Amino acid sequence: MSDTALLPPEELEARLRAIGAERYHILHPFHHLLHGGRLSKAQVQAWALNRYYYQASIPAKDASLVARLPTPELRREWRRRLVDHDGDGSHPGGVERWLRLTDGLGLDRDYVVSLEGLLPGTRYAVDAYVNFVKYRSVLEAVASSLTEMFSPDIISQRVSGMLRNYDFVSAETLAYFTPRLTQAPQDVAFAMDYVKRVPATRAEQEQVMAALRFKCDLLWAQLDALHFAYVEPALPPPGAYRP
Amino acid sequence: MSDTALLPPEELEARLRAIGAERYHILHPFHHLLHGGRLSKAQVQAWALNRYYYQASIPAKDASLVARLPTPELRREWRRRLVDHDGDGSHPGGVERWLRLTDGLGLDRDYVVSLEGLLPGTRYAVDAYVNFVKYRSVLEAVASSLTEMFSPDIISQRVSGMLRNYDFVSAETLAYFTPRLTQAPQDVAFAMDYVKRVPATRAEQEQVMAALRFKCDLLWAQLDALHFAYVEPALPPPGAYRP
Repeated sequence: MSDTALLPPEELEARLRAIGAERYHILHPFHHLLHGGRLSKAQVQAWALNRYYYQASIPAKDASLVARLPTPELRREWRRRLVDHDGDGSHPGGVERWLRLTDGLGLDRDYVVSLEGLLPGTRYAVDAYVNFVKYRSVLEAVASSLTEMFSPDIISQRVSGMLRNYDFVSAETLAYFTPRLTQAPQDVAFAMDYVKRVPATRAEQEQVMAALRFKCDLLWAQLDALHFAYVEPALPPPGAYRP
Repeated sequence: MSDTALLPPEELEARLRAIGAERYHILHPFHHLLHGGRLSKAQVQAWALNRYYYQASIPAKDASLVARLPTPELRREWRRRLVDHDGDGSHPGGVERWLRLTDGLGLDRDYVVSLEGLLPGTRYAVDAYVNFVKYRSVLEAVASSLTEMFSPDIISQRVSGMLRNYDFVSAETLAYFTPRLTQAPQDVAFAMDYVKRVPATRAEQEQVMAALRFKCDLLWAQLDALHFAYVEPALPPPGAYRP
């Protein structure tokens, strides 16, 4: 197939799945250490503390896309993600559920929310995501969400491995992940349909693939920062969380 | 009271209400013509067509504020406005209800949505509002919503006057306004509490008052544009809707 021909939608989807097979952070050494039970409680705390910033930034990224979507129908679809992450006032959303995870790991909630102990590398990667969704095309913004198609696998590895291997982790602590197993596939169904349907040119399809690579890279970079600071060489920068 | 002393919250509220009493567009000549039955059907169409752009832009303005609010609690409060305007998939939201109003007035829906006939003056005023909420402080963005405290009065004048005076207007056509009579006071209760509670300095209280003046001005400017183009001197610019 030439490099300029529009790809059939199924071929585009296959190429998107191949990007995940190569670049999703399920392949990162830190993930293997985490679910394999080879991290200390302090290292797991560092992971949860840093990842809180990612979780807490997701609604900002989603709302900035809602602000740019042109129709009530598209906005309603994306608004569901805001409900998933911020809750509805009676059911806790993802941000609150992540704080229950950091609570369960013995971290002080005010300290977590303050972001004082955050690794700068986490901040830069997460901010890069928020800015990507805010300033790139709507198509690229939607495409960058497609890592969710790979998340059920990493979640099931993480949850089963962490429950088996850490006595300081309970099913309640990990309750964040349960709703994600149903929310993520629903989100992906919409986004995958959108990126298969909307591009009119191969150039736009290449943007879709580039957006997914970008997103895989930033999830990976967050684990790089954790690995460097807390595993090897284990050099947390000044000001970062120290167990 | 000195010009630098923090105002008691009740005094701030009194001053905000005074801004409405002086500047809200219920005082604009075009509003009097509209509810007084002194406009032609074509002039009412021009009003509905132009105001569609305001309605359709409200969710973008609200979502851009949701993207900047720091907590799930605040975002949930403001997210309610997105539901009001975009609907929930079974109940129509404000944007769809406004299109039923333009339908009811005999305007082609595709033409309305295309914005082709929009007055440039409407576009500039509405875009100024969206940009104000996007780029000013959260406090100013919240304060700019406070015109809703004056809206039940203008809605009741508009609905009763238009039903009485125009044979081409039915209660169904004006169904947009009914839910606004309960939604607006709920929105105002939150926003008024916020602007009374959050400012720590008189300078911030002055920003709150300036934001409300700004918002009153842009509602007024939209009626100026309509009045100039369609009432007196009745000079619609090239490209604008011509009955």
